[in-house]
Amino acid sequence: MAKQIIGVLGGMGPQATCDLFQKLINATPARTDQEHLHIIIDNNPAIPDRSAYILGSGPDPTPALVESACRLARAGCDFLVIPCNTAHCFIRAVEEAAGIPVLNMVEITAEEARRRLKPGEAVGLLATTGTVKSGLYHEALARQGLSLITPSEADQKVLMELIYGPQGIKAGFTGKDLRAQFWLLAERLVSRGARLVIAGCTEIPLVLEDGDISVPVLDSTDLLAKAAVERALSGAAACASR
Amino acid sequence: MAKQIIGVLGGMGPQATCDLFQKLINATPARTDQEHLHIIIDNNPAIPDRSAYILGSGPDPTPALVESACRLARAGCDFLVIPCNTAHCFIRAVEEAAGIPVLNMVEITAEEARRRLKPGEAVGLLATTGTVKSGLYHEALARQGLSLITPSEADQKVLMELIYGPQGIKAGFTGKDLRAQFWLLAERLVSRGARLVIAGCTEIPLVLEDGDISVPVLDSTDLLAKAAVERALSGAAACASR
Repeated sequence: MAKQIIGVLGGMGPQATCDLFQKLINATPARTDQEHLHIIIDNNPAIPDRSAYILGSGPDPTPALVESACRLARAGCDFLVIPCNTAHCFIRAVEEAAGIPVLNMVEITAEEARRRLKPGEAVGLLATTGTVKSGLYHEALARQGLSLITPSEADQKVLMELIYGPQGIKAGFTGKDLRAQFWLLAERLVSRGARLVIAGCTEIPLVLEDGDISVPVLDSTDLLAKAAVERALSGAAACASR
Repeated sequence: MAKQIIGVLGGMGPQATCDLFQKLINATPARTDQEHLHIIIDNNPAIPDRSAYILGSGPDPTPALVESACRLARAGCDFLVIPCNTAHCFIRAVEEAAGIPVLNMVEITAEEARRRLKPGEAVGLLATTGTVKSGLYHEALARQGLSLITPSEADQKVLMELIYGPQGIKAGFTGKDLRAQFWLLAERLVSRGARLVIAGCTEIPLVLEDGDISVPVLDSTDLLAKAAVERALSGAAACASR
């Protein structure tokens, strides 16, 4: 079966999109250029902020997401990936408009959490306030029989500042001060019972990796990359349900 | 003036394309997602090897390059960049078919060499055998009043093995053994009179950086990224001649 073309609906933010690109390359078994996968990336950072819309303080990103998805479908992509957890709130509209499947990073991450834990155990989530309020991960983890611990309101505010603030990840900062603050936020979830922590915003794996804290960290970007490579190499049959 | 959309005709190889993407992000003055540039990347590693064709041992990459360029033009790109020095042998056909400008990485790099050196001084070139034999850099540097030193035939063979071999960069290796071998090849050019060395294959900046050797290293990928960002931010007027 021919390899499929992966479409990346990106730009949310560009650094997270570049991180996914690197992880797609790393996940591909290849010794020559020609053994690598055909990937088309639409890095469109003008897409309105997803979290702001969900919280009622910004324009709807759906039209821009749909436009980008259609651009990728027209360019010949067989399926899409979206390296932004919060954008998964809009995944149905995107999939319907583009007419090609979208791999669901949130579901893929929740399935990996289930493989790592026992039924009923708790997962910690570090994500944007938009993702938290949307209930995306609550629902996906509940379907896997797991419960969810999110940061306190004060910690969630700190987290958003570390992502969006003038010294935050989206402004280009990933240094050790920022890392230390993410470790602290993650360890607070562990102290409240989390058996693993999901880096559930694609900016977070840039500063928090598996091995950094006392429990495993699930990198949603990396899990999405591996699922996308598997699908592209094996053809649609293997993941038709997604 | 509206920002322009950058098209990246990539996949030659994917790691070099990802490196360009990172350097485009780094070169963009931005504090939020929305301040970044719209970039569309066609990472198509199935494009036949450019060096093999030039040396008479592989199929013509022109049709695949043209197809990718047209895909990017149709997707709305205002101009193209190609993160593969050797592919610049085919740049005219690509530009004519796509109907949008292609920034010329070889010319941009030669111009930077001229800014760094005095007339008549010598530049060392580390590039694929295809790029060396094509005379791309010889001509571009001659137009800038500079001369060129290339590796001995034996060293050039070693260089190709370090890029294309089973333990080479295109196979995913960038470790310190590989780095040391590139430093050695570069220093041999310096000992023969090179006042700076051009990393003239987009895989080479992955293992050889400015500061690694006794003379400056010009990273053709980084220079291309900076020129592309400048053009995208300022509009076509600033670079209409290219």
